[in-house]
Amino acid sequence: MNPEPVTRCVVRAGSYHDSIVLMRLQRALAALPGVIDAGVIMATPANRDLLAAGGFELQESANPDDLLVAVKGESETAAAEALSRVDALLRVRSVDSSEDYRPRSLAAAFKQLPEARWVLVSVPGRYAADVAGEALEQGRNVFLYSDNVPVEREVELKRRARDKGLLVLGPDCGTAWLGGVGLGFANRVRRGNIGLIGASGTGLQAIMSRIHALDAGISQAIGTGGRDLSAEVGGITAEQALDLLRRDPETHVIVLIAKPPAPEVASRLLAKAQATGKPVVVHFLGAPLPGRRLGNVWFAATLSEAAELAVGPHPPAPSPGTGEGETCGYVRGLFSGGTLAYESLIGLSAFLAPVWSNLGKHRLDDPLRSRENTILDLGADEFTVGRLHPMIDQDLRLRRLRQEAADPEVGLILLDVVLGEGAHADPAGDLALHIAEARRKVEVAAIVIGTDADPQGLETQVSALEAAGARVFRTVTDTVEWIFLRSASSEPETTPVSLETLQSLAAINVGLESFHDSLRSQGAASVHVDWRPPAGGNERLAGILARMKG
Amino acid sequence: MNPEPVTRCVVRAGSYHDSIVLMRLQRALAALPGVIDAGVIMATPANRDLLAAGGFELQESANPDDLLVAVKGESETAAAEALSRVDALLRVRSVDSSEDYRPRSLAAAFKQLPEARWVLVSVPGRYAADVAGEALEQGRNVFLYSDNVPVEREVELKRRARDKGLLVLGPDCGTAWLGGVGLGFANRVRRGNIGLIGASGTGLQAIMSRIHALDAGISQAIGTGGRDLSAEVGGITAEQALDLLRRDPETHVIVLIAKPPAPEVASRLLAKAQATGKPVVVHFLGAPLPGRRLGNVWFAATLSEAAELAVGPHPPAPSPGTGEGETCGYVRGLFSGGTLAYESLIGLSAFLAPVWSNLGKHRLDDPLRSRENTILDLGADEFTVGRLHPMIDQDLRLRRLRQEAADPEVGLILLDVVLGEGAHADPAGDLALHIAEARRKVEVAAIVIGTDADPQGLETQVSALEAAGARVFRTVTDTVEWIFLRSASSEPETTPVSLETLQSLAAINVGLESFHDSLRSQGAASVHVDWRPPAGGNERLAGILARMKG
Repeated sequence: MNPEPVTRCVVRAGSYHDSIVLMRLQRALAALPGVIDAGVIMATPANRDLLAAGGFELQESANPDDLLVAVKGESETAAAEALSRVDALLRVRSVDSSEDYRPRSLAAAFKQLPEARWVLVSVPGRYAADVAGEALEQGRNVFLYSDNVPVEREVELKRRARDKGLLVLGPDCGTAWLGGVGLGFANRVRRGNIGLIGASGTGLQAIMSRIHALDAGISQAIGTGGRDLSAEVGGITAEQALDLLRRDPETHVIVLIAKPPAPEVASRLLAKAQATGKPVVVHFLGAPLPGRRLGNVWFAATLSEAAELAVGPHPPAPSPGTGEGETCGYVRGLFSGGTLAYESLIGLSAFLAPVWSNLGKHRLDDPLRSRENTILDLGADEFTVGRLHPMIDQDLRLRRLRQEAADPEVGLILLDVVLGEGAHADPAGDLALHIAEARRKVEVAAIVIGTDADPQGLETQVSALEAAGARVFRTVTDTVEWIFLRSASSEPETTPVSLETLQSLAAINVGLESFHDSLRSQGAASVHVDWRPPAGGNERLAGILARMKG
Repeated sequence: MNPEPVTRCVVRAGSYHDSIVLMRLQRALAALPGVIDAGVIMATPANRDLLAAGGFELQESANPDDLLVAVKGESETAAAEALSRVDALLRVRSVDSSEDYRPRSLAAAFKQLPEARWVLVSVPGRYAADVAGEALEQGRNVFLYSDNVPVEREVELKRRARDKGLLVLGPDCGTAWLGGVGLGFANRVRRGNIGLIGASGTGLQAIMSRIHALDAGISQAIGTGGRDLSAEVGGITAEQALDLLRRDPETHVIVLIAKPPAPEVASRLLAKAQATGKPVVVHFLGAPLPGRRLGNVWFAATLSEAAELAVGPHPPAPSPGTGEGETCGYVRGLFSGGTLAYESLIGLSAFLAPVWSNLGKHRLDDPLRSRENTILDLGADEFTVGRLHPMIDQDLRLRRLRQEAADPEVGLILLDVVLGEGAHADPAGDLALHIAEARRKVEVAAIVIGTDADPQGLETQVSALEAAGARVFRTVTDTVEWIFLRSASSEPETTPVSLETLQSLAAINVGLESFHDSLRSQGAASVHVDWRPPAGGNERLAGILARMKG
């Protein structure tokens, strides 16, 4: 009869080990005779839960900075014997004898490889921002693989980088592919003319692999880190990357993928995408599509489709029309049809966020008063109690049309005109005078829904609206695209990132040694820094040292 | 110098007038000499706000049931003079002398037009459910245009209808087109083989108009009302409609549009859509697309695109494969790539809702314990502090794979295998033994991301996974479609709605007279009921009468 397995553990207080060393220790312990399983973790609550879920019952108290080593042995003796070897195993380091001299600091590394324009940082999150900051100080771009970096540090690093015309990819950036060399996790693909920007790591890999499988190639792939498109960070890196790929002659088509950005960030990015003048394929995972295409910007529903759209073909985008639409001012939509209102809201929200309404996420406190860009469903319950639907009686809409046209902040009023059985016998006739009046101050666009068989007469209705000065469309999609094309913004230029950033890659690597190996195997120049945390990872001591320096 | 405009008003307590009468009264008052503007409303708070926004300052107190008539005159005398004519103007009714006898009750109307299978109800919301209930009692289908009907009444009516094999379209159903005749608001279109189902009114009109413009035609258009796909109502009408169009020989292609349904309702509808065997185009406005196509179900990004996809062509859907996939059980996804996890989550959530995860809407309380269908990003911060990323070290994933395979509720484990620079040198080799072990209890599918140039060897990796018993895919999209095809459900049948419901339309109309006129103008048989609310709209009196009857 086998005895019960015995779990034993040791705690090493506040000492730093890199995660490859921990993985090796765990494997070495698990391979020892009489050992059933081993766990080696930094003792954060999450990691302790993971160990517990793995069947290690631990009572030992430990701080998150402590190293916790647990062994499940077939016997008390086997477990104790294994633990007694921890220190010896930790001292075993993988020494690659063919490896040349390793600098111990970034400064020394720059002396060794002065042409390095990039620094790869994959040290633990709490040290990573300091290393990245040092690289920026030295005028280098940063590939910041580390996660668990506070967002305030990210913002501060990225603003600093932007002012200097440098890039900070990350934190939590898994993937980049620059000038034919992969940084971090990257697939080997053929070179081509599709440039990728991704706030998502494996998303970039999925698309680059798919493009390769479709016999096309990649010019550059720029990861931004998952938080780049949040409201806090504001898409700093993604905007820099769009501008860089706009100028990159190798790049003919751009793909931008991310989880759904903060709405105002998405709007800015779409304006930037439009400004590139190149076909841009956008895939915001899990976000509704504003349409299939807005001008030169294409929207993909999935990663695979993003790759397919990138490979093309790309029919030329419509032009914004002859200057007439260049007026500014807010859009106000006064709809009789709820669905038309909703579809317009979704489409416009992609690039005019926030759009206020009585039906979406950004609800008007008072539907009787519009705010900035506003889309109203005038057929909603709050407008129709004891009253005919606006598709039959336009009284309410005509009053609101006057009210909106009188607002000096308004530039465009959007209306739907729905024909057919049951509807008003002559909606355009009812609207015409009021549209003509409104046109003295604002633009008016009308979406006419109907057929050539409808009783109101499609031609007659369209003519009446056009005669009154309205721009007439037949679908929400066309209307939204027209508004997109006329709303092109001219953003202030920031310090441009040099195109040389993308060429003949040479890099300093701080952190995971495997990234250094990978760079070398791809023929890129790389220097690996033999990095150690300040004060050997002892935070109290590091604090004292910092205060002494200060 | 003009004197200040004077606003005066009168209140008629608790008296019912239909909204066309109110519109006529308002227009008549506004046309009187010396009158600047007039407002005629049922005195709900929302309507009073609307009047106030229109420049009518009112102090009079009134109940929501009261009729409130306001006049803005050039003088005190003009305003008073106008108001003195209200009663006279209310007595003027539009009498169409060519009109035949008008029954005063539904019962009498049925005697007059016994072949009527439909009753159109557009009386005010608080009366509408009773009228609809009476129609169901008489075995008739209901087109319920009225809004402001409580949701509990909707549920009750629809359940009753379902048991009887009848349809209740609405409440707040604007549009239907049955056997070539439009009900409510509907465009005149050519007949064809595209059947429409819409929880959104003008959405149906936009699509039917667009299909007509694309030279194709409509078989039927069935509105369900905007709340049909809510969790409360559960999509009762939409499910009936899918089943009806499945059986309708005129319908070759089906379009289903709605605002995003409750997740579990969306899942059920997609299963029903799949079961039709016909191409089904789905457009859930404002919802992310799970892909471009899942089997016979196509997803449109916009109303226009829904029309285009409906017109076709429709390449045949892939078949679910040879029986092997028919096992039940939950899906558990263990991902190293966050984006691949997220894209899978979005895709699967379309038909397996809810899907739990550590990254989406339905968050696991404890990411260490899966629940029902679960997708995990094992590269998320909570799993990676002081630990290598799962793309380098799979220890955590292998442990979790064992844990999931041991769960008797699990049917399928989903993994990603990401190749390329920086990643594990042989991830498939690492996984193979564990997959083979898991395959004794569950199915395993692997999404391999990589190229034929990657250092791990794409072929080798795929072969190792297949040899271990995993089903291998190259994109999330293909994987999600495969899971969709194997998860076909066999729902219990309910009382089928007769196909005759869609043919040779004859109807009873209760409410808006214009709907009756529209039916007649389309050549359909219609009888208009000269409906009055119980006790003339006096709710207190109606209550007393109801108690006396009871």
